[in-house]
Amino acid sequence: MEKISKRQLERLPLYLKYLYSLDDTSIDNVSAPMIASALGLSTEQVRKDIQLISSSNGKPKQGRNVKELIEDLVSFLGYNEHDDAVVIGVGHLGQAFMNYKGFDKFGLNIVAGFDVDSKLIGTSINNKKIYDLYQLDSIIHELGVKIAILTVPSEVSQVVTNRLVNAGIKAIWNFVPTHLDVSEDIVVENVNLASSLAILSHKLKKID
Amino acid sequence: MEKISKRQLERLPLYLKYLYSLDDTSIDNVSAPMIASALGLSTEQVRKDIQLISSSNGKPKQGRNVKELIEDLVSFLGYNEHDDAVVIGVGHLGQAFMNYKGFDKFGLNIVAGFDVDSKLIGTSINNKKIYDLYQLDSIIHELGVKIAILTVPSEVSQVVTNRLVNAGIKAIWNFVPTHLDVSEDIVVENVNLASSLAILSHKLKKID
Repeated sequence: MEKISKRQLERLPLYLKYLYSLDDTSIDNVSAPMIASALGLSTEQVRKDIQLISSSNGKPKQGRNVKELIEDLVSFLGYNEHDDAVVIGVGHLGQAFMNYKGFDKFGLNIVAGFDVDSKLIGTSINNKKIYDLYQLDSIIHELGVKIAILTVPSEVSQVVTNRLVNAGIKAIWNFVPTHLDVSEDIVVENVNLASSLAILSHKLKKID
Repeated sequence: MEKISKRQLERLPLYLKYLYSLDDTSIDNVSAPMIASALGLSTEQVRKDIQLISSSNGKPKQGRNVKELIEDLVSFLGYNEHDDAVVIGVGHLGQAFMNYKGFDKFGLNIVAGFDVDSKLIGTSINNKKIYDLYQLDSIIHELGVKIAILTVPSEVSQVVTNRLVNAGIKAIWNFVPTHLDVSEDIVVENVNLASSLAILSHKLKKID
């Protein structure tokens, strides 16, 4: 398999979303220029991305079959094999994730939540049980989960991360705006809303 | 003012978070190597970033005063001047944003929400009223809001965006995983959770 860059990987879910929207119409075939124009990208970029993930070649002037390309993307992104995940910290954002039904389409299956709040422990959100954070090790072991979605207060993020790694977690989707110190074999993907907001405000001030 | 890159801007909220954590301790001064080591960055990078945003020079061997550096960062990031914003689409994620009390620290003040669900319209979340999406133009005008947080279903994201721009919105914090077509004077900052998740899964599969 050819190497894929982070930027390429980021674009693939956008292609998939666009192709799903076409799949509801009478359009059977799609070309790189069509996708590029719909998503505000360059045709060359789209062509390269599709070559990387697609099993078949497109026909000249006809483009590619929408359904086939959807299948290729879904398979490449692993959306057909579901990964189980737990939510660590069931505050507003953690609750939103547990309630959200759309992760299923992206191959992610949230199976449980963890918190320290006694009012939350033992209750369920969207049929997913909330456990005591102190039971982390045994339950993660029992569930065999590899992915944790981290939405705890930043003061405790490193301590909780250490416990997650000890319990067998291999990948952390980190929504806490702090740097997590982990060994090289642990995957961390940071979503820093504060940074994103800083960029938005800065751009807005420049055009004001 | 020197030009700041996107990557630099993304790092500033992380510095601030770290400095706030020091401010609760007895540590009065901080050096670039200290910050770099705490956040997993290079000292050279941190030094350049701080030079860009700081009004005073650090003293050799003493570093910089934590409180002063916090003030410089807060002022540079505009966190002392609050921008009003509205949430468009009060689903799980939109509700989480309306409930979240932490945006205040980042200079963002959510004043209202908009939705099409009659069960939500007229109710309040965290003392912020939810209005009918069809009243968008008049209420955004009345409130004088410039920033919209977009969390609507992707099928309607472009239509809603057009209405937001017509109503006077200048910046869109976009959580919908679709490309938004806007004129050049409108700022869009995309937070694509599907793309972020694709990167996490891909990295996890490589180490499996």
